[in-house]
Amino acid sequence: MRYEEYTIEGRNAVTEAFRSGKTIDKLYVLDGCHDGAVNTIKTLARKQDTIVNYVNKERLDQMSATGKHQGVIAQAAAYDYAEVEDILQAARDKNEPPFIFLLDEIEDPHNLGAIIRTANLCGAHGVIIPKRRAAGLTATVVKASAGAINYTPVAKVNNIAKTIEELKKEGIWFVCADMGGEVMYRHNLTGPIGLVIGNEGNGVSRLVKEKCDYVASIPMKGDIDSLNASVAAGVLAYEIVRQRLQGN
Amino acid sequence: MRYEEYTIEGRNAVTEAFRSGKTIDKLYVLDGCHDGAVNTIKTLARKQDTIVNYVNKERLDQMSATGKHQGVIAQAAAYDYAEVEDILQAARDKNEPPFIFLLDEIEDPHNLGAIIRTANLCGAHGVIIPKRRAAGLTATVVKASAGAINYTPVAKVNNIAKTIEELKKEGIWFVCADMGGEVMYRHNLTGPIGLVIGNEGNGVSRLVKEKCDYVASIPMKGDIDSLNASVAAGVLAYEIVRQRLQGN
Repeated sequence: MRYEEYTIEGRNAVTEAFRSGKTIDKLYVLDGCHDGAVNTIKTLARKQDTIVNYVNKERLDQMSATGKHQGVIAQAAAYDYAEVEDILQAARDKNEPPFIFLLDEIEDPHNLGAIIRTANLCGAHGVIIPKRRAAGLTATVVKASAGAINYTPVAKVNNIAKTIEELKKEGIWFVCADMGGEVMYRHNLTGPIGLVIGNEGNGVSRLVKEKCDYVASIPMKGDIDSLNASVAAGVLAYEIVRQRLQGN
Repeated sequence: MRYEEYTIEGRNAVTEAFRSGKTIDKLYVLDGCHDGAVNTIKTLARKQDTIVNYVNKERLDQMSATGKHQGVIAQAAAYDYAEVEDILQAARDKNEPPFIFLLDEIEDPHNLGAIIRTANLCGAHGVIIPKRRAAGLTATVVKASAGAINYTPVAKVNNIAKTIEELKKEGIWFVCADMGGEVMYRHNLTGPIGLVIGNEGNGVSRLVKEKCDYVASIPMKGDIDSLNASVAAGVLAYEIVRQRLQGN
């Protein structure tokens, strides 16, 4: 199940990686390159919903470890992703109301790792991340998760807002962390819940926020704007834990 | 008040740095070097309570940017430190019971920065760190603090256990985060308080733990051992905030 993060370079190697079923987080293709072999790779990428980035030769040369990329470089995940259904099943197996983290474009691998670690310890059943504009399960994330990645499933979806809509049909309520909401103590967070954490710089995106049932704020007394994203996730997650332990 | 982190190399430059009153976090001296100029520097370092590290030539060469270290390299802080008294005064100025973070050997600069950020936002009056075996106020820490370092004073002390003893005379109670303590909700954390956070790998040291009035635990349901240190600090700090807002 586990494999190391690596970059795969060259047409044959990348084609083989896709065909063997490896999870490719990102594909980099030389802009303007349209011959048969490259088109085959792009088709394989589309089937696996891998993001294709078109870049210039300088960028590819810079990324290349071998110097022989032939116009294609793939980044494989350090870890296999789970499905959203696996997360719901984990909750069912434990006979607990679902408790899921949804990360709306967390970019820093240390934050992603620390959040997976928190998810594990606060008793969440899994973490959902988006395919685009977000850190994937790189070796840095695996390390920062301090082993939590071995226990807590991480699923990758095309669209967080759409996933929220689907999960609402399962009876899950969604709370996002943002300024200007009701202070977190005043929400009832004891039921089946999805905790939505936004991007380090921009917070939760508008489309995702609109899908959420509550906006919860962490009380802030200080002079600066916001907590580190993994700290904010921890503080909110433990407010959920407190309410569940004490009954709101 | 603010200056950039930098290394200072060579005998004259290092001597001048000490004489001008700059805060030198660490001094590296070529092992076995005992001539007059170097002894003068060591005496200046002792006066300022700067840690002196004796290293071999390879290590110094590696650290050197100029290649002309002459057997001495100093690392200046990116930021000036405050005094513990400044922190107590900040609490008096706001007419609030003191709320202080004490970090027992936090080594990761990202964690230190994130914790200073949390200290600012949860309304703590300052952060105390030890001189030895801990990250100082480097440029990475300043950045990770997201500006909080401009508002929240950070003091550096020789010995955290001794500082706790002195602060107890001011009527401050000390709670440390550790496994095996009473769960944090059951402690009364509303008075003048020092929150003690331990090292990333080893937790709170025995000597420091013995000085604490309470040991508070974060409830953990997961498969791994512990939260990221900055997340744990955030969760405990916000339990203090909750109790202060709601009255325990």
